[in-house]
Amino acid sequence: MLQLNQHPTGRHFLQIPGPSPVPDRILRAISLPTIDHRGPEFGVLGLKVLAGIRQVFKTQHPVAIYPASGTGAWEAALANVLSPGDTVLMYETGHFASLWQKLAQRLGLQTELLAWQGDDPELPHAPSWRRGVQADLIEARLRSDTAQRIRAVCVVHNETSTGVTSDIAAVRRAIDAAGHPALLMVDSISGLASADYRHDEWGVDVTVSGSQKGLMLPPGISFNALSPKALAAAKEARLPKAFWAWDDIVAMNADGYWPYTPSTNLLYGLSEALDMLLAEGLEQVFARHQRWAGGVRAAVSAWGLPIQCADPSVYSPVLTGVITPPGVDADALRKLIHQRFDLSLGTGLGKLKGRMFRMGHLGDSNDLTLVAMVAGVEMGLKLAGIKTTGSGVQAAMDHFAAHTLPAATAKD
Amino acid sequence: MLQLNQHPTGRHFLQIPGPSPVPDRILRAISLPTIDHRGPEFGVLGLKVLAGIRQVFKTQHPVAIYPASGTGAWEAALANVLSPGDTVLMYETGHFASLWQKLAQRLGLQTELLAWQGDDPELPHAPSWRRGVQADLIEARLRSDTAQRIRAVCVVHNETSTGVTSDIAAVRRAIDAAGHPALLMVDSISGLASADYRHDEWGVDVTVSGSQKGLMLPPGISFNALSPKALAAAKEARLPKAFWAWDDIVAMNADGYWPYTPSTNLLYGLSEALDMLLAEGLEQVFARHQRWAGGVRAAVSAWGLPIQCADPSVYSPVLTGVITPPGVDADALRKLIHQRFDLSLGTGLGKLKGRMFRMGHLGDSNDLTLVAMVAGVEMGLKLAGIKTTGSGVQAAMDHFAAHTLPAATAKD
Amino acid sequence: MLQLNQHPTGRHFLQIPGPSPVPDRILRAISLPTIDHRGPEFGVLGLKVLAGIRQVFKTQHPVAIYPASGTGAWEAALANVLSPGDTVLMYETGHFASLWQKLAQRLGLQTELLAWQGDDPELPHAPSWRRGVQADLIEARLRSDTAQRIRAVCVVHNETSTGVTSDIAAVRRAIDAAGHPALLMVDSISGLASADYRHDEWGVDVTVSGSQKGLMLPPGISFNALSPKALAAAKEARLPKAFWAWDDIVAMNADGYWPYTPSTNLLYGLSEALDMLLAEGLEQVFARHQRWAGGVRAAVSAWGLPIQCADPSVYSPVLTGVITPPGVDADALRKLIHQRFDLSLGTGLGKLKGRMFRMGHLGDSNDLTLVAMVAGVEMGLKLAGIKTTGSGVQAAMDHFAAHTLPAATAKD
Amino acid sequence: MLQLNQHPTGRHFLQIPGPSPVPDRILRAISLPTIDHRGPEFGVLGLKVLAGIRQVFKTQHPVAIYPASGTGAWEAALANVLSPGDTVLMYETGHFASLWQKLAQRLGLQTELLAWQGDDPELPHAPSWRRGVQADLIEARLRSDTAQRIRAVCVVHNETSTGVTSDIAAVRRAIDAAGHPALLMVDSISGLASADYRHDEWGVDVTVSGSQKGLMLPPGISFNALSPKALAAAKEARLPKAFWAWDDIVAMNADGYWPYTPSTNLLYGLSEALDMLLAEGLEQVFARHQRWAGGVRAAVSAWGLPIQCADPSVYSPVLTGVITPPGVDADALRKLIHQRFDLSLGTGLGKLKGRMFRMGHLGDSNDLTLVAMVAGVEMGLKLAGIKTTGSGVQAAMDHFAAHTLPAATAKD
Repeated sequence: MLQLNQHPTGRHFLQIPGPSPVPDRILRAISLPTIDHRGPEFGVLGLKVLAGIRQVFKTQHPVAIYPASGTGAWEAALANVLSPGDTVLMYETGHFASLWQKLAQRLGLQTELLAWQGDDPELPHAPSWRRGVQADLIEARLRSDTAQRIRAVCVVHNETSTGVTSDIAAVRRAIDAAGHPALLMVDSISGLASADYRHDEWGVDVTVSGSQKGLMLPPGISFNALSPKALAAAKEARLPKAFWAWDDIVAMNADGYWPYTPSTNLLYGLSEALDMLLAEGLEQVFARHQRWAGGVRAAVSAWGLPIQCADPSVYSPVLTGVITPPGVDADALRKLIHQRFDLSLGTGLGKLKGRMFRMGHLGDSNDLTLVAMVAGVEMGLKLAGIKTTGSGVQAAMDHFAAHTLPAATAKD
Repeated sequence: MLQLNQHPTGRHFLQIPGPSPVPDRILRAISLPTIDHRGPEFGVLGLKVLAGIRQVFKTQHPVAIYPASGTGAWEAALANVLSPGDTVLMYETGHFASLWQKLAQRLGLQTELLAWQGDDPELPHAPSWRRGVQADLIEARLRSDTAQRIRAVCVVHNETSTGVTSDIAAVRRAIDAAGHPALLMVDSISGLASADYRHDEWGVDVTVSGSQKGLMLPPGISFNALSPKALAAAKEARLPKAFWAWDDIVAMNADGYWPYTPSTNLLYGLSEALDMLLAEGLEQVFARHQRWAGGVRAAVSAWGLPIQCADPSVYSPVLTGVITPPGVDADALRKLIHQRFDLSLGTGLGKLKGRMFRMGHLGDSNDLTLVAMVAGVEMGLKLAGIKTTGSGVQAAMDHFAAHTLPAATAKD
Repeated sequence: MLQLNQHPTGRHFLQIPGPSPVPDRILRAISLPTIDHRGPEFGVLGLKVLAGIRQVFKTQHPVAIYPASGTGAWEAALANVLSPGDTVLMYETGHFASLWQKLAQRLGLQTELLAWQGDDPELPHAPSWRRGVQADLIEARLRSDTAQRIRAVCVVHNETSTGVTSDIAAVRRAIDAAGHPALLMVDSISGLASADYRHDEWGVDVTVSGSQKGLMLPPGISFNALSPKALAAAKEARLPKAFWAWDDIVAMNADGYWPYTPSTNLLYGLSEALDMLLAEGLEQVFARHQRWAGGVRAAVSAWGLPIQCADPSVYSPVLTGVITPPGVDADALRKLIHQRFDLSLGTGLGKLKGRMFRMGHLGDSNDLTLVAMVAGVEMGLKLAGIKTTGSGVQAAMDHFAAHTLPAATAKD
Repeated sequence: MLQLNQHPTGRHFLQIPGPSPVPDRILRAISLPTIDHRGPEFGVLGLKVLAGIRQVFKTQHPVAIYPASGTGAWEAALANVLSPGDTVLMYETGHFASLWQKLAQRLGLQTELLAWQGDDPELPHAPSWRRGVQADLIEARLRSDTAQRIRAVCVVHNETSTGVTSDIAAVRRAIDAAGHPALLMVDSISGLASADYRHDEWGVDVTVSGSQKGLMLPPGISFNALSPKALAAAKEARLPKAFWAWDDIVAMNADGYWPYTPSTNLLYGLSEALDMLLAEGLEQVFARHQRWAGGVRAAVSAWGLPIQCADPSVYSPVLTGVITPPGVDADALRKLIHQRFDLSLGTGLGKLKGRMFRMGHLGDSNDLTLVAMVAGVEMGLKLAGIKTTGSGVQAAMDHFAAHTLPAATAKD
């Protein structure tokens, strides 16, 4: 039988910024026998997860759940509301924003990519990868689009490649200030259920998300949260769509079913994840992540290494990027840490390749797991001969010992 | 925690023609912790399942594995090799062939739908839904396509809605006889790993399949087996594609990885399924299904009810459709059987709604499970007041007692 | 990894009279991570299962749960209340009654074994193995024990080797009628949670039970339900006891803990089993078993084979023993059925070796599973050349189609 | 369903010296369906685990596997070879040695308890609880036993209550030097499969062990490894025994079966554990534990707290006891750590109650898990206002970064 035992004894520390560690309860739930996706028992499950996921997105409107991983949901968002040749305004916060742009281009869309152009001595080639979306740049561009050719503004809420959580409400205000009719489309694949997110209140038209981050599931299902405006746009859009088409899904979802075979066993996991998250309370979930992030950043600061996110107002509660000193190959460091301490960290992606690594602090985790991650990195830094200015482990421990969460942190 | 306990005590009999019952070993495998899809352990897993799935398709060429359910793989097959407005020749063997056509239309393709037009007294409105693909109709149409506007011929290998397994080699011969360059694209979602299938030998360009049938997995991953001709066509094709694009997948698969997050835990299950199927031997797997199908058909014949498939040469080894007497609502019968005996049967789809039901005999099953299914149907027929001409259970038992498989049936 | 795949495809039919099939929910529960048996979370679990198991025994008094299988609980019952050389009156209903006697002898007790001495043409060497406990024989023996040397009366409630469920209330009345102070000790290892059982109402002093029958758990934990009289006797008893000693267990159980390491993961399963049984309702559980037993006996009658239990008033709802025709080796038949149909039946034990086999119909089962069992036996009988007088499968189907349970059968 | 979610998010750190964390593979194995313990598939399993467990004990002789937890195996060892009133010489290394003595007394044996009587300023009331077995005391006592009334010498190999691993070979030499025929009986419940152990080479007659420590299983099965001398003694011994009797077990084990129902699902786990341990190699397993123990002791030394074991030559590789400063309630500290950091530590037992706590470092663990444990304790010490002399976390990290194991550490 499958053993997955390349690694040494004990539990692997999966500290990439997703897939995040899947709780034991969820792993058991997804191992229950597959049922008939057209039978009455499934309908009950379907209605339950559809109601629950709306609570997580904080929306009253439909959420399409795809039996596909997150990249598919990116495609779905674009394919449902746009037509060949349409222009979308995107914003380069990092690698995933860039990938979404490339995907839009492959679909035959015209893309414009905004980026912050200021100076960054640390990463002069990628200054906008250290900051959040600058809503004023979006507002300015939309004001100049007097022909209203821009059909959608696409931004990433929590940029997984950098550890920056942009202000989505500000983007909404910018669009409104410009009086522009473009749709607001947001990727919150790694933000949902870890960072505060409010689909309806923030006036988002389509939010894209996935299962393997804050929802604590294995990868394999993904989401489009919709708005009435997005649903209306979908009726006119002419990009070919079939598997991704919202119309059939929304119609069938009324009874808890899907137009084609859903990913039954991952929906079992979703049911369990929703039970866990809603029992804990979303605000508590967000506070828990903020507290963890504070501890990890304290460690990085103690080491004297730059945090990838240069703007403290948009630090991500989900992950922290760490820039390695010039000349140090961050991937060689990651490899050493993996081999010696069975700890997986995120790699530097795209423009950041080899220059940084990412520490995930999301989902089903706790203080000691994060201290262990910090310790694994610190031992690796030492073994790699990288000088640090102090003990990150001590800083993290001081943080976790000094700060508590309200008692409601307990799962029930 | 998720209970899935609407049904009474004991194990549910999931006898729809897919999702098929998932073996206990596979359910445990998919519950193992999710790993880093960019780490070294994953690469080993990836290379293993990619090699194994090629053996199941009987191909030397790449197989794209999608983190998406089967309908997605239908779309992928078309989107990779065709351009907007291209014409595809499809063949109406039943509901799924029709759905594939609808999907092609939504993607902006021109579709032609061939169908057998003979008389069928039992189902005069759907004669072609009782027979396999008539290769001569395809050959004639291709011969008449002197401008070679038809870019692809799309057929369903095992039509899940009817229980008919078409002769794919004959379709290949028909295309060759017509000297036509069209691609041959085959849906073997419910045929693969249950019915004999030979991607390379039969000259198929794209075979579409899914996880939840003969592969004995939960739904959620799907496949495109390719040919060099299909790969070449993909370079010219202009339908928008990104998530489904083969090029990036094939390139990344060289090292056992995928361009975006794969469905890690279902790949664990695929690894286990491949171990089981290849240890048993594919020819043994096929013989096992043929033997089971014979027993179930013996039961239907004993009842005196018509089998949906009117041509014994193309009886499916995967499922058997049963036509209910005129005036009998097959879905009311199914509901009664489900409520009383915790047995799920397949519904009549599309043109067959209410006129028939489907008995699955595929995947991880055995003689007694199939006798139980027959018994559940037989009790249901009696309770519904439907007259039968004899004991189907006795016929099935006689069949199973009289026929054995070689000793190699044992799993190891 | 462990594969357990000697058998062919599909789910094995485990139709021995215990271990019974373990529900999927319970198997997942026992796979949850082991916790500290001295920590606060464990105490909550402990109190829950201790309260629940009392409901199943229908007792207000303590129930000792052993991290040991059922034979250990037999020993525990005797060792706690008796002294070396004490006399116990036992009653030979079958193999397990005999084994309990042998165990008592090994512990240094004097045993007297009562048995019905009437004629039985079918099994002249074991007439008492076809009937229940004759309470009048016990009463007579106790009346003659004017010195009150008999310290305990030991009877088996549901004799797993024969399929006879004795009337325990009648034994209580017999003891009372004789005015004898002996303790009443009952083995209900295979009766509890399948057949009606009332520890307090029937005045039982010690009831012995196990996990792997009606409780639907794997083997490995077992039970002693106690009475105040038994607890008082334990204070005077002089057989050596340590692991089995009730005193420490009862004392520690007050807070949900045990004096030594309990079988944590099987207690997870017990928690789940109690949730299931109490949600269904014990009376419903008993009715379900009675209905199943009726169907299986109808099949045996149709075959024209004698049922091991010769007295219909004490037919077991848990299992049915079937006597094979003279000259037929029942074990050869069982082996044939196992090899051909992956169906496990119970063997003839002790005096019944080779003369009968046992069909279990207990725990997590349903109509179709039992029809499948009957069909497997029927095919085996035919293949073995054993003549039958009719179709057992038809008889079972007729029974199950004709009889329903109240809607409350559904699990929730 | 059972949730076990009193604790907050993430994985609990179970760092008591057993039950140790159960590997994911083993948890899945024990969740496989229960099979017939009299069927052919079980026999194969039985023979496999019986062969494997002998390798772990390093013995050529029978090993009895009990469906009972470790305390039962203590009782079994005594009950099989001794007669009422026999004298056994025991040695007080700590709480478990004392409990074994109490158990022997309850069984009706005469016990003599040796203990080191030197001065210990730290724990004047329990000096022998800080040291290993002093073989010379045993030798002297046996020399004085000219009547050879002592039938057995009972010692604990790895004293779980203190973290002391005694030299068993030295005890053997002492018995031999005294020319005394007493049996040598050893409790290695927490030593086996973590600390070097050699049943045959060291001339042990009965070794007692359990599942929930180095074997990495849940509690519930236990062991008696035997010697020919022990088997011979069992024939004469007169303590009552039935469930524990070796004779029936050894006889039935010849074919892979047991005389009564074994703990099937825990044997699945044993099969998996044996695969894991023997693939890694026992010497590698021992080296791994020694390395871990070194890191944890380095942390305790850095704190400036006394290690419970005062003799470095017998430091346990399995756990480390830590004495808290006078006036500090070690259990209050443990509770604080549990509540704040979801970390379970071992309590001070018996004479050590409130004076120390125990850190487990055994079984399925790794460097980062142990650093996390150390960090949790260190944060707890700080929060409790307990002064330390330095950073234990830093010391542990330095140890783990400086020391590696040979590459063979990888599981396969």
